[in-house]
Amino acid sequence: MNTTGSALLTDHYELTMISAALKDGTADRQCVFEVFARRLPTGRRYGVVAGTDRLIDLIAGFRFDPAEIDFLRSAGVIDEPTATWLAGYRFTGEIEGYAEGELFFPGSPILTVSGKFAECVVLETLILSVLNHDCAIAAAAARMVTAARGRPIIEMGSRRTHEHAAVAAARAAYLAGFASTSNLAAGRAYGIPTTGTSAHAFTLLHDDEPAAFGSQVAALGKNTTLLVDTYDITQGIRNAIAVAGPDLRAVRIDSGDLSVLAQQSRELLDSLGATETKIIVSGDMDEYSIATLAAEPVDMYGAGTAVVTGSGAPTAGLVYKLVEVAGRPVVKRSENKATVGGRKTAVRRHKPTGTATEEIIVSQGVPDHQTNDRLLQRTYIAGGEPQARPTLQESRDHLRQCLISIPWEGLKLSAGDPAIPVVIIPTA
Amino acid sequence: MNTTGSALLTDHYELTMISAALKDGTADRQCVFEVFARRLPTGRRYGVVAGTDRLIDLIAGFRFDPAEIDFLRSAGVIDEPTATWLAGYRFTGEIEGYAEGELFFPGSPILTVSGKFAECVVLETLILSVLNHDCAIAAAAARMVTAARGRPIIEMGSRRTHEHAAVAAARAAYLAGFASTSNLAAGRAYGIPTTGTSAHAFTLLHDDEPAAFGSQVAALGKNTTLLVDTYDITQGIRNAIAVAGPDLRAVRIDSGDLSVLAQQSRELLDSLGATETKIIVSGDMDEYSIATLAAEPVDMYGAGTAVVTGSGAPTAGLVYKLVEVAGRPVVKRSENKATVGGRKTAVRRHKPTGTATEEIIVSQGVPDHQTNDRLLQRTYIAGGEPQARPTLQESRDHLRQCLISIPWEGLKLSAGDPAIPVVIIPTA
Repeated sequence: MNTTGSALLTDHYELTMISAALKDGTADRQCVFEVFARRLPTGRRYGVVAGTDRLIDLIAGFRFDPAEIDFLRSAGVIDEPTATWLAGYRFTGEIEGYAEGELFFPGSPILTVSGKFAECVVLETLILSVLNHDCAIAAAAARMVTAARGRPIIEMGSRRTHEHAAVAAARAAYLAGFASTSNLAAGRAYGIPTTGTSAHAFTLLHDDEPAAFGSQVAALGKNTTLLVDTYDITQGIRNAIAVAGPDLRAVRIDSGDLSVLAQQSRELLDSLGATETKIIVSGDMDEYSIATLAAEPVDMYGAGTAVVTGSGAPTAGLVYKLVEVAGRPVVKRSENKATVGGRKTAVRRHKPTGTATEEIIVSQGVPDHQTNDRLLQRTYIAGGEPQARPTLQESRDHLRQCLISIPWEGLKLSAGDPAIPVVIIPTA
Repeated sequence: MNTTGSALLTDHYELTMISAALKDGTADRQCVFEVFARRLPTGRRYGVVAGTDRLIDLIAGFRFDPAEIDFLRSAGVIDEPTATWLAGYRFTGEIEGYAEGELFFPGSPILTVSGKFAECVVLETLILSVLNHDCAIAAAAARMVTAARGRPIIEMGSRRTHEHAAVAAARAAYLAGFASTSNLAAGRAYGIPTTGTSAHAFTLLHDDEPAAFGSQVAALGKNTTLLVDTYDITQGIRNAIAVAGPDLRAVRIDSGDLSVLAQQSRELLDSLGATETKIIVSGDMDEYSIATLAAEPVDMYGAGTAVVTGSGAPTAGLVYKLVEVAGRPVVKRSENKATVGGRKTAVRRHKPTGTATEEIIVSQGVPDHQTNDRLLQRTYIAGGEPQARPTLQESRDHLRQCLISIPWEGLKLSAGDPAIPVVIIPTA
């Protein structure tokens, strides 16, 4: 979706830098840019790479059309040589990076972009927008999946975020292990299962609750979910089973003290013979409220606001930094922002048991090889051409494996240090 | 932008409700839906209406094309009668609401959608996505504008949010009083001034800082902003003035202790004769850090992450509730979510001095008229046809006037109650 017309999703200064660099001859200098996070959001123990797949499609389609160039010219953003350069733009360099579903830590080089200065710098804003958003959602979603301990979670937060961000958020949440989404565009674009039955408005529309439930069951069958908290939950459940019978698939509760209500609802359903009817809870669910319900008879969660807003960390804090010019490491040297220059190679080191112990990142070199090392970077674009990539399902499986591999403390919801240490070795 | 293809930016359950309502005959019942916030984000004293203008365009273009309907059919989301209904969909009802730039408080009916049940319910997700996002950004941005006390703020947060959310965020921030944006798509779509000069990468690309500054001045002239904190700020400022001369327009500082650095930089610039050279500061600016710099010699702020993520409140908490069916008020009656049914009419009451005192909202009636009352709702769509709307500039001016009208406590950044009380009068 939206792979065309993405060239103006770019900061003004990328183009003024290109203008100046074209004029002084530095535009063609061979450069390496790197995407990494200086730190994780406060207390988070890992980040999750997400969005790279849709980013690569956007980069492959990144073109300035004549109307866009006319706008830039008439707005005084660019001069004629820059207009000519933009009209011929296509990315011809190399992009490598961590797989989607991979974990990352402070300093992990999750994307490395190599090519001429101008062709790389013009992609900065788009690269950061996609990765900062999608990684933020995936990290929050992964914590919720851990908290749910195998119970499915439905992503239903589209209404709480920008209408197009919602589609990307549904994808990132599915990558992180959510079972399905309410978002139809995400279902179409990415093949994610979509689910949904009815809102309180549907009950209020009808003359009474049994009429609404009867209509829903007539249209969708008993393999549906009845929303039972519009008026009184106890009566709602009685109405649901009276209308649908004891083989109703599920009831949903969207308000109230969910711990108490889940227990009461389970007992009531069982007493009505609806022992197989599932209980779905929704309403301001985040990783903490999900964890709180672990011991309650809940079968499925619906999560909205918290997942699409990153549960307190709505952006991943990733930056895009120039680390190498013509083979020479470069680095900004100002207070609090010291980084290591040079193109990095990253491996994750493991015990023989498979538990990760540390991440080793070497500038302009290769880490010493040890048994149980895993190389973390793969090639996304070579000579301007996108390479074969894992499917969304494969990336989802990859994250599940990665989460199994980190020390158990890394899965705690409480605030703490990164799950494993990162060792960054500067250029010798 | 993106006004086509918005029909699938919709939750699955909107369509299952339509299927059931078409089957049982309730799809054509005349309904009123209302958008409001149950509460403001914790401690916030007002909300800001934003996004309605782009929402109305999206609603006017809301159509299901054949490929979208095929997807919905093949995915089992809809049955044949629903497919037929969707193929003929266009909104034929009425939409009224608060103007963009208007303030809102808990319970304010910022958008009221009237029409047949099915044609109104299908818009729920899109309406909430647009308004929840844009209102959240505008409210955060308005607080920053207040904190900046007349100094201009540049919106430069595109890289910290979803690539299309960034465009809407730039619009909302401009509506709230920001001076300009870095986002080129927002410049093109909405006529917002765009600004930007260079990043640290541009300095690192060159052999040394004077070479980078010289290149930028050669390309862009002295009416530009040099970024002086790549290496050492004092030397950076000396290099900047040495290269550009004392009539350089501005320097930008993006890191470090900005209070101290602004003072030192001003003194140094003045000592070099660059008494008119402006100082722009950026780097994790929010309303609080802007307020902290009020007494420092800063001429302009650049705000990024905080504004595009709503400065701690990334979504506005707006809901879309059915309040009337066939002229009868309806309301969900469950714990903690009591609302008043019925179509609302809202006025804001003022002292003779112009200071707002309260907001009066009457269900199925009209507030008693008092001098200095202001009606808060306007017609956006009548009989399916969009009506003339204010320009973005007019909405920007409207917000400025509204902020002048609230009691001064309402502009405090600290946590507190809503700036004025809201009185909701139920149906008699």
